Amino acid sequence: VKIVTLLTDFGTDDEYVGVMKGVILSLHPEAAIVDITHSISPQDVVQAAFSLEAAYLYFPAGTVHLVVVDPGVGTERSIIALKARDQFFVAPDNGVLSRIIKSEMPSTLVRVENSAYFLDTVSQTFHGRDIIAPVGAHISTGTDLNQLGAILQANELLTLKNIDCVVNAGGEIMGKVISIDRFGNLITNIHCHNLQAHCPDKKPAEIEIAIRDDVIKGVSKTYAAADAHSPVAVIGSRGYLEIAVSMGNARQYFNVEKGASIRVRC
Amino acid sequence: VKIVTLLTDFGTDDEYVGVMKGVILSLHPEAAIVDITHSISPQDVVQAAFSLEAAYLYFPAGTVHLVVVDPGVGTERSIIALKARDQFFVAPDNGVLSRIIKSEMPSTLVRVENSAYFLDTVSQTFHGRDIIAPVGAHISTGTDLNQLGAILQANELLTLKNIDCVVNAGGEIMGKVISIDRFGNLITNIHCHNLQAHCPDKKPAEIEIAIRDDVIKGVSKTYAAADAHSPVAVIGSRGYLEIAVSMGNARQYFNVEKGASIRVRC
Amino acid sequence: VKIVTLLTDFGTDDEYVGVMKGVILSLHPEAAIVDITHSISPQDVVQAAFSLEAAYLYFPAGTVHLVVVDPGVGTERSIIALKARDQFFVAPDNGVLSRIIKSEMPSTLVRVENSAYFLDTVSQTFHGRDIIAPVGAHISTGTDLNQLGAILQANELLTLKNIDCVVNAGGEIMGKVISIDRFGNLITNIHCHNLQAHCPDKKPAEIEIAIRDDVIKGVSKTYAAADAHSPVAVIGSRGYLEIAVSMGNARQYFNVEKGASIRVRC
Repeated sequence: VKIVTLLTDFGTDDEYVGVMKGVILSLHPEAAIVDITHSISPQDVVQAAFSLEAAYLYFPAGTVHLVVVDPGVGTERSIIALKARDQFFVAPDNGVLSRIIKSEMPSTLVRVENSAYFLDTVSQTFHGRDIIAPVGAHISTGTDLNQLGAILQANELLTLKNIDCVVNAGGEIMGKVISIDRFGNLITNIHCHNLQAHCPDKKPAEIEIAIRDDVIKGVSKTYAAADAHSPVAVIGSRGYLEIAVSMGNARQYFNVEKGASIRVRC
Repeated sequence: VKIVTLLTDFGTDDEYVGVMKGVILSLHPEAAIVDITHSISPQDVVQAAFSLEAAYLYFPAGTVHLVVVDPGVGTERSIIALKARDQFFVAPDNGVLSRIIKSEMPSTLVRVENSAYFLDTVSQTFHGRDIIAPVGAHISTGTDLNQLGAILQANELLTLKNIDCVVNAGGEIMGKVISIDRFGNLITNIHCHNLQAHCPDKKPAEIEIAIRDDVIKGVSKTYAAADAHSPVAVIGSRGYLEIAVSMGNARQYFNVEKGASIRVRC
Repeated sequence: VKIVTLLTDFGTDDEYVGVMKGVILSLHPEAAIVDITHSISPQDVVQAAFSLEAAYLYFPAGTVHLVVVDPGVGTERSIIALKARDQFFVAPDNGVLSRIIKSEMPSTLVRVENSAYFLDTVSQTFHGRDIIAPVGAHISTGTDLNQLGAILQANELLTLKNIDCVVNAGGEIMGKVISIDRFGNLITNIHCHNLQAHCPDKKPAEIEIAIRDDVIKGVSKTYAAADAHSPVAVIGSRGYLEIAVSMGNARQYFNVEKGASIRVRC
């Protein structure tokens, strides 16, 4: 138990992330701190939830994940800590852990309220430094979650609405773009499991993906399957349907941003 | 003694930071290296000085902080090393450590000049790699500062001028914007201690903050205290007065950049 | 043997780099992971090759360097691993290691094909996570390169064409801009060794460097050697000729991008 990960919307232009690392190492000098990303769009809890879902399975048992995307900092929102799949998660109660909880029922879930595990002075503006970092450091040294506060039930937590794809009356899967990566690839909320469940009798090459006024025929195995500068749909490294442009940039090609609608027809 | 931090204006697009880490780990394989930030505006010694001040108190005793914001690299400017509050600092003598020295008189202060602790070849353009990184690694392994060069007195160092807020003839605190964070929050050089000293009889809600043609009434506890899209003044996580816009971006709202004037009236 | 470096074109906006670190630490919890850079321009194998060349010599024996700039991911291109100068390198066979091989003949060179060292599931789109990270982690724990796959000869590898400077019929060294750093400095492919070999009888002050319609007279020792806002040529920290503008930005001054032509006259 020594890895502590950070997933924030702080960016790295300021000293905020470095300060959180100082707090963690002050309490647990042997911690190995890993940045998942600090480039979540400011206050985009949905993007953070999917990013965490894509990352956590690749970390070993005992890893402590700290998520600081926290539009409600300084208000009455709670901070929660949970254990699932032998990993630990600390975050504001704003739905950012809802993808984890959906796939893994927590074995322990608590409200973080025992200030003995906080910094001595808690600001109104930086709970990542004053609460989440020291609590995460204590968990990584073996502090039991039950020491941190009262047990919660999963159904007491705030959840994110309308983040899963749905099937519409016409039999199409209706999804949307959750994030756009550096290469301009459009990452959707349509998982390969959704495709398999909804289109069980279709070959990948027969599925149609509609975006704006375009239709992409077939789900390919690689980005390179399409002609240069042509769109291509693949199951990306997160397990979700992605739309790319071979040797190009799908964001620019389709002129879309996060939230854009994607429809799939079997 | 194993944490070594880096604070530079190198950005992370190039390999410069990675190279400094290679040098440090070559000399001290057990070092835990923490990035404070590499996004200081090129050669902005003032921004770096405030960023370091905001970060160092959150690191444990024995931490070695390396600061490479160095417009004078290759000229006759000295490199200095000092110990204060049981932490170590290595930087060019250009005032970047002046916030540290102001709040903590160094117990040891030396000019770095013993090339036995440098890389074998010292370039004219990258003293961060060739001098500061290896000297920092040696300090983190226990090398005494007195081995590095001659003792200096604090008053021999270059200091930064006009970086503290002042009180003008009209009884206003005159400050300025020192940095702007990712969220567009304007971080000033007016510390909560300045407010308390200058306005001892005023409640936070009675203080007025003037920026451009606007006046913000009161210092609030949280960013969320203002109506959406309205400006709000808070004491930020650094302890300095910050101007934000609730659910918005103060840089854009006020159309200001670093250096903009801020006035406070009791 | 515990340092593992990463050099990619992934950026840090997405969770990809964090995921690779999770994979490495799952297999080798004591690894010290160092980011060289993740800001290689998407799929710019040449920029990555020069960046790696500039960095690796500053790391200790036993370091494992993982390079993931991989336009051909999911196609039939091989992944290779090699040992040179007591360091290890894993990368796609697309020429990104060609600067290393040019300066250091590998003592061992293999095609990576033994899936026992891969993740259980290998995607078509993220071999950095599924192959290169776990193979690198295994090498850092002592796995012999011969366990990974068949021996290759250096001349079987793909090499990059036209990346070295050449001498033209008029006796000029013809080079180009390989990368542009955060300060706007133009880093060329003309090494100080090229200058010494081509202009053995000239003093640095006598050499002329032509870029666009300008001619810079002399190679200076420091950026500060020129008048403010004037161009200056120096041998940069990589050992290559760089063109800078004192107190300014050479990219903007000359209005050039990567690939721009540079000519040197003795």
